Amino acid sequence: MSPTRLEVALSTDLYELTMASSYHTLGHAGRAVFSLFVRKFPENRHFLVAAGIAELLERLVELRFEEEALRFLATLPGLRRSFVDSLVHFRFRGDIWAVQEGTVVFPDEPILEVEAPIDQAQIIETLVLNSVHYATLVATKAARCVLVAPGKTLVDFGLRRTPSLDAGLTAARAAYLAGFAATSNVLAGERYGIPVSGTVAHSYIESFPSELDAFRAFARTYPGDPILLIDTYDTLRGAEHAIIVARELTQEGRRVRAVRLDSGDLAELSRAVREILDRAGFRDIQIFASGGLDEYEIAELEAKRAPIDGYGVGSRLGTSADAPLADMAYKLVEYEGQPVLKLSTGKRTLVGAKQVWRRVGADGRYVEDLIALRDEPAPGPDWIPLLRPVMRDGEIVETSTLGQARAHHREEMQRFPEWMRSLRPVERYPVRLSQRLAQLQSEAERRVRSREGL
Amino acid sequence: MSPTRLEVALSTDLYELTMASSYHTLGHAGRAVFSLFVRKFPENRHFLVAAGIAELLERLVELRFEEEALRFLATLPGLRRSFVDSLVHFRFRGDIWAVQEGTVVFPDEPILEVEAPIDQAQIIETLVLNSVHYATLVATKAARCVLVAPGKTLVDFGLRRTPSLDAGLTAARAAYLAGFAATSNVLAGERYGIPVSGTVAHSYIESFPSELDAFRAFARTYPGDPILLIDTYDTLRGAEHAIIVARELTQEGRRVRAVRLDSGDLAELSRAVREILDRAGFRDIQIFASGGLDEYEIAELEAKRAPIDGYGVGSRLGTSADAPLADMAYKLVEYEGQPVLKLSTGKRTLVGAKQVWRRVGADGRYVEDLIALRDEPAPGPDWIPLLRPVMRDGEIVETSTLGQARAHHREEMQRFPEWMRSLRPVERYPVRLSQRLAQLQSEAERRVRSREGL
Repeated sequence: MSPTRLEVALSTDLYELTMASSYHTLGHAGRAVFSLFVRKFPENRHFLVAAGIAELLERLVELRFEEEALRFLATLPGLRRSFVDSLVHFRFRGDIWAVQEGTVVFPDEPILEVEAPIDQAQIIETLVLNSVHYATLVATKAARCVLVAPGKTLVDFGLRRTPSLDAGLTAARAAYLAGFAATSNVLAGERYGIPVSGTVAHSYIESFPSELDAFRAFARTYPGDPILLIDTYDTLRGAEHAIIVARELTQEGRRVRAVRLDSGDLAELSRAVREILDRAGFRDIQIFASGGLDEYEIAELEAKRAPIDGYGVGSRLGTSADAPLADMAYKLVEYEGQPVLKLSTGKRTLVGAKQVWRRVGADGRYVEDLIALRDEPAPGPDWIPLLRPVMRDGEIVETSTLGQARAHHREEMQRFPEWMRSLRPVERYPVRLSQRLAQLQSEAERRVRSREGL
Repeated sequence: MSPTRLEVALSTDLYELTMASSYHTLGHAGRAVFSLFVRKFPENRHFLVAAGIAELLERLVELRFEEEALRFLATLPGLRRSFVDSLVHFRFRGDIWAVQEGTVVFPDEPILEVEAPIDQAQIIETLVLNSVHYATLVATKAARCVLVAPGKTLVDFGLRRTPSLDAGLTAARAAYLAGFAATSNVLAGERYGIPVSGTVAHSYIESFPSELDAFRAFARTYPGDPILLIDTYDTLRGAEHAIIVARELTQEGRRVRAVRLDSGDLAELSRAVREILDRAGFRDIQIFASGGLDEYEIAELEAKRAPIDGYGVGSRLGTSADAPLADMAYKLVEYEGQPVLKLSTGKRTLVGAKQVWRRVGADGRYVEDLIALRDEPAPGPDWIPLLRPVMRDGEIVETSTLGQARAHHREEMQRFPEWMRSLRPVERYPVRLSQRLAQLQSEAERRVRSREGL
């Protein structure tokens, strides 16, 4: 989407500006490091797939406070006029380290870290969280669908129930990144080159005198091999009607590409439909299923070996319905070279500028992660660093295309041990802190406690 | 937000266009009525608050397929060229009946009905659902928060974890509509005139040598009466630091407006903080609470009579976390004057153009609803019709301002019986079908079954 500069600049929590206003007045402008990470994972998630970073970087490059924005900000209580005036010169000039989109991350691992004068790093907080949180949740859910349906065609049908048009676009991109084959979202096709697919709704069928009439009308007018929606009245009868049309098309050298089931017991119905199609000699007509699906239902259908060739996944994907929220936080971890943290109950933040290392075993599989300080050397030759400089002085220095991120994610998933690729693994992927980080962490806690007299 | 015309036009599921392409080729252009309703409510919802309708109408008025859109559509398989070319003339020219935003609706009750040539009514499906679904879910969750905290100040803090900037704006509006007092979202202030509020984050406190230094710095630079965030290190110690600053401000004729707690046992801490403040003579310093709150936690805090004056409600509101998805559907209910429906398992759709009537009892309270055919007369003098013409021939004929919708919602909630105003009522608000609707429904089912040989 293309929010205007005014919209991007003002899409922020007021307190980011209240703080920046205070910093400006005080001349408080030390170098700060902020870390973006997920503290506690949603109950149903044992890994997350990072996404939304490319869009964030583009927004940061474009972030400006122009005249109209300043005019509005000047009307708000809580902001000093001299600060508002100074915003005309605002450009984000910070450095950012981030994991590549499509990378699998675990609790407490930084998805990205921002280093900049504190006012700049603070002002972008809302944008950072808003850009990465939802995209990551959808990419994760999509990845889970891909895990349970290897080799099957998955299509994103989410747009109608995503929280906004903007979110629909983000969701289509995140799903494709995680291995979906296509989307129903036309704009996602235009914007990202994702294959777009779609047939008809029940309303189409209902607007004709009979189902057979509707199938014939669609086959006659569709410029290609049609997919027929067969569950409007009775799925098995629908399959028979599809065969009639398939026979008619055969005479024109055309074919019915697939039938779609959107309701009922999909395992049972798909088996019955497969039998009807096969018996009529139409082994090449595929069966496509949709209707409130998610990774759990797909896993069940796959476990029952339902003869389904592809799945449309919609509303539950576009809302990450079973985990709509992650405890993703953007926290100050270092100020003017000093590690900082809060002591609030149950909210641990790992201090300092960090790196995440992932160890590759002899068989090429990932073995464990280590969260270390950024300036520590590699723990060994078989460790890969996950955080890479993607922005320097406010300019993008590394970015991957959607295609690259998709390929990266596919490879990434293949390198995790087999047990990771289930919806509810019994083991936990090991993530440790480096000795130096652990030490700095406890020193920082001790120092803060003693300073605050606690 | 301001998506471009290209973005709005292409933010659609491809199948809307595939169907329209077929209709165009066939000259299939009968008058259709589509109904938007929620079939089965999310488990945790016994009413929904309609929202998102104003934005939908604005989008429909602006909906155009311009050159760039047509160029892209021409590249898609599945659409006939003559149809794509014809889209240059597309304008939505339909009629829409809708409930006023802020109205409480129940299962199966139409939120809106669209009457237009079938291609037009179909093409807008994705926009209709996308505009109303999320806004309605957030307005509903906000209304539940308002219900459990009468007289308290509620502030939307959702933007950082809403699924997009667009969604954040929608959420801020929906929350205000349902009775929230303010939002942290600056753009929502600019766009809708909603009061904007915000203080500081923990990072602010941590970037100073000590908490007391931070409070003093903020108080010195904030142009107004500051709110102090007191839970960074130790909430009770924070309250004492706030008192020191409050005393210092008193000498300047200023005051600390409130303290904010963002973690820990809020009931216990708020009581202890209240006592500390009162003992120091600062009965006028308010206590504001935030941190993962929703209607359930607020209800618990209120039940414990926690001395909290206001609540910030963020991520769980902006994602409608306990009900991120409603079974909201947009279904064809009449074509060329004939009631139509599908027979798919468990998916009842009420046929025909409808009206919803709400009966007002002698005490001014709502008693029951009746879903009837649109052309039925009022069931009696004490019944109010909920659906009103809001668009005719594609032009907006009735619209209410956000302020009006907010006032309407407040009045609406007051007119429901007391038991409705709990989070988990034991009773169910009665909704019946008119005799004529019930009869038409069963006739239509019979007719379709016999026609399809079922």
